Amino acid sequence: MNHKIAPLYDALCIYERKQTVSLHVPGHKDGQAFDQQASRHFREILKIDATEVNGLDDLHHPTEAIAEAQRLAADAFGAEQTYFLVGGSTAGNLAAALTVCQPGDRILVQRNAHKSVFNGLLLAGAHPIFIAPEVEPETDVATGIEPSHLRKALQQYPDVKAVWITNPNYYGMGINVTKLVDVCHQAGIPLLVDEAHGAHLGQVANVPCSALEAGADLVVQSTHKMLTAMTMASMLHVQGPLIPRERLAAILAMVQSSSPSYPLMASLDVARRYLIMQGREQLANTVVMLEKQREQLAERLQCLSIWTDKGTTYSRDPLKWVLTSRHSPVTGYQLLAWLEDMGCVAEMADTKNVVLVFAIHNSEDQVKRTVQAIQALDAKLQQLPVVEKQKNDGSILLTEPGQLIEPAISLQEAFHQKKKQVPLAEAIGKYSAEMVIPYPPGIPLLAPGEKITETHITAIQQIKAAGGYFQGASDEGMEKMFILVNP
Amino acid sequence: MNHKIAPLYDALCIYERKQTVSLHVPGHKDGQAFDQQASRHFREILKIDATEVNGLDDLHHPTEAIAEAQRLAADAFGAEQTYFLVGGSTAGNLAAALTVCQPGDRILVQRNAHKSVFNGLLLAGAHPIFIAPEVEPETDVATGIEPSHLRKALQQYPDVKAVWITNPNYYGMGINVTKLVDVCHQAGIPLLVDEAHGAHLGQVANVPCSALEAGADLVVQSTHKMLTAMTMASMLHVQGPLIPRERLAAILAMVQSSSPSYPLMASLDVARRYLIMQGREQLANTVVMLEKQREQLAERLQCLSIWTDKGTTYSRDPLKWVLTSRHSPVTGYQLLAWLEDMGCVAEMADTKNVVLVFAIHNSEDQVKRTVQAIQALDAKLQQLPVVEKQKNDGSILLTEPGQLIEPAISLQEAFHQKKKQVPLAEAIGKYSAEMVIPYPPGIPLLAPGEKITETHITAIQQIKAAGGYFQGASDEGMEKMFILVNP
Repeated sequence: MNHKIAPLYDALCIYERKQTVSLHVPGHKDGQAFDQQASRHFREILKIDATEVNGLDDLHHPTEAIAEAQRLAADAFGAEQTYFLVGGSTAGNLAAALTVCQPGDRILVQRNAHKSVFNGLLLAGAHPIFIAPEVEPETDVATGIEPSHLRKALQQYPDVKAVWITNPNYYGMGINVTKLVDVCHQAGIPLLVDEAHGAHLGQVANVPCSALEAGADLVVQSTHKMLTAMTMASMLHVQGPLIPRERLAAILAMVQSSSPSYPLMASLDVARRYLIMQGREQLANTVVMLEKQREQLAERLQCLSIWTDKGTTYSRDPLKWVLTSRHSPVTGYQLLAWLEDMGCVAEMADTKNVVLVFAIHNSEDQVKRTVQAIQALDAKLQQLPVVEKQKNDGSILLTEPGQLIEPAISLQEAFHQKKKQVPLAEAIGKYSAEMVIPYPPGIPLLAPGEKITETHITAIQQIKAAGGYFQGASDEGMEKMFILVNP
Repeated sequence: MNHKIAPLYDALCIYERKQTVSLHVPGHKDGQAFDQQASRHFREILKIDATEVNGLDDLHHPTEAIAEAQRLAADAFGAEQTYFLVGGSTAGNLAAALTVCQPGDRILVQRNAHKSVFNGLLLAGAHPIFIAPEVEPETDVATGIEPSHLRKALQQYPDVKAVWITNPNYYGMGINVTKLVDVCHQAGIPLLVDEAHGAHLGQVANVPCSALEAGADLVVQSTHKMLTAMTMASMLHVQGPLIPRERLAAILAMVQSSSPSYPLMASLDVARRYLIMQGREQLANTVVMLEKQREQLAERLQCLSIWTDKGTTYSRDPLKWVLTSRHSPVTGYQLLAWLEDMGCVAEMADTKNVVLVFAIHNSEDQVKRTVQAIQALDAKLQQLPVVEKQKNDGSILLTEPGQLIEPAISLQEAFHQKKKQVPLAEAIGKYSAEMVIPYPPGIPLLAPGEKITETHITAIQQIKAAGGYFQGASDEGMEKMFILVNP
């Protein structure tokens, strides 16, 4: 296929050159009616911020430029069919849930999933059976699920409609997806993969393989995260006979805007072209350069460590560096703040680690500045009193890898029921009305509809005492939580 | 309030100036890794295509720049609270349905609603009771519902959770929303308004009043359509005690991307500033200019007419011109195509009419080119043989204004059930599995879950014979349709 062209972007350039009188939306009329003070940033993009006029196709019924751009993307990513997403991977995950589940259907879901996976299941009225992931021992971060655990889970719940995993995790740690595909296909059900953090996987030999290469049936990728599309522009890929395509297309048209953004769609088109024409070569070189820098740096660091998998995970994304303080009781949040003071803004942190995200192409200057900042941070830590870190007590996670958790009622039922916020002690014996997610490792301790035990509350208090952070909790201090009034 | 500032756009400019090393997403790294051939359009916008780093707030939990930008927007549009939408008015309508309806809840819905209203009801598992709108006699276009019809409907269905209308319609025709608000509030339920086509209403004295001025409880506006935001950027406004705000915010975070586009959000912020600082004055002047041009043009036209309400509707949007061929059997589609040949691209057409959309600020040159094109079109029509148009037989609409239609099963049940496509004749006595929407007037003849009668099929065939177009039909020629296999 001819990857030199960008059919959708090219169609927009033709639209721009036509210079017709716009008697249609949008109201900024190709930028002619717009805030002058913001003109510098918006002027050029507004010229292609068009709508579905002749020649610009229709995202929800593509037959021309969008269809062609999607075909080129499918070729680049190894899919049979690719759908452009203007609502981010969120839209892809909502659509995935609604496509494979009817109300009341059971589905096996890796428990450390993104909230859009939970929201998709909620909207679909599905009954998820959660399966607890492994934990990487050096970083205490949740990774993926083991094929043997999946096989057991499918024996226990043979009626599930699909299996839904997240891979790689936010830290770039990956599992062997091929083996999970085998388990699913033996059971005749599809494997869905939230590959939001892995749009670059499989593109060159020195990064891990992609979910599509591994044979997954439906894959959602945030093209804006690790590749170069505009933020909120993602892709959904499918292959094989297990995903009903017509139903998927109908649902995507349901959960996405009927006025989709052409700049976002065109950015997916040119992100694909850039990847094939230059990006792959740049990515391969970037990985070589980063690995060399990482190894050299690792040797020089005294108080910080850069995570390297020593057989604890199946794969590692070389575009991510996970830094941990070795000795002093310094949290990942603190590391992130200090790096920001040095002009280096990291992606995210947890109580223990901070995560740096490189791109397929980084200026050498920026990588040097990063290495210098990390060394300066290490020197700073050397000034702090040495306090040997306590080993995390894994038991506070409550779940053993592979453990299955089935909420008493569906996420949807829990959402719609009356709820009230009560002090933790009063919650024992009641049913949770919110997600309680200690971070790390990001495995929900409680999902809506799950019965709250004394052990849960003790765990929450232990995690709080350890300085843990609860993602998206209704009470940030986690003194109170929402319970169902009449479960 | 100080409308000279644009807090979110300003925060992005500060972000840009910081020149920190980005070790976070997006992967284009402020545009440093991007397709060079597309650089002209994307370069400047990518500098502010940021993510939730310090100083840029969080759409789903706003406390800083986004919260301030939303407060200014609420002030500008007369709302108590405003939510920025990055998923278009589609996201607003999905959220509205899910906020007011639990599964199984009844809701009264104006039948000529946008598909996102139907999709919201489907996702919510709601049971809509449809109420048929009035029809504007000159254009044969569906408008809104009558207060007396609404009052009767509420007597018949006193348990509905809300009333949902669309106003103005796509053609700029409006109803008296104040009276509908009164009826709803007397019944203690909220009025939801899809005001996608009316973001500019109420902003100056010479355009119709807005739904918020009329007292509506929840209003969705496509800021990109009639005002100047980027396509897919909309707003949801609320006022009063009838909409649960916490639930609404939770649902918006569910249906919208967790990586929302900052350029789209910032375009809402500067669209508000532009409106207040210059746009209102421009809009008032534009309306005066357009009205003068319209009146002069109307006198000169021989074969075309420009729609002017002569008491057939409550209000008319002066930024829309609806053109109809008077004598010869020329469709709106044909008028649209001829206008495009003359370099003027219209918004949309139906069998009878073509709709032109002006903006709050149009260059005089573009308005002149439009007037010239319309005159040239009129001259062209004068060359065609005169054939007196047949008056439309209103009976083919099947529904009298105010008629109530209750599908046998919910939209959600109909969506999930097994369906098959059959020839029209075989569909009689079965239940529809799709929307059948003759355009105009855009009132669904059949909704999913409705029983198909011989009268329906006869009507479909009459409309086809008259050259009617069926919006979004599974079979464009409308020879076949989807029915439920086991209703």
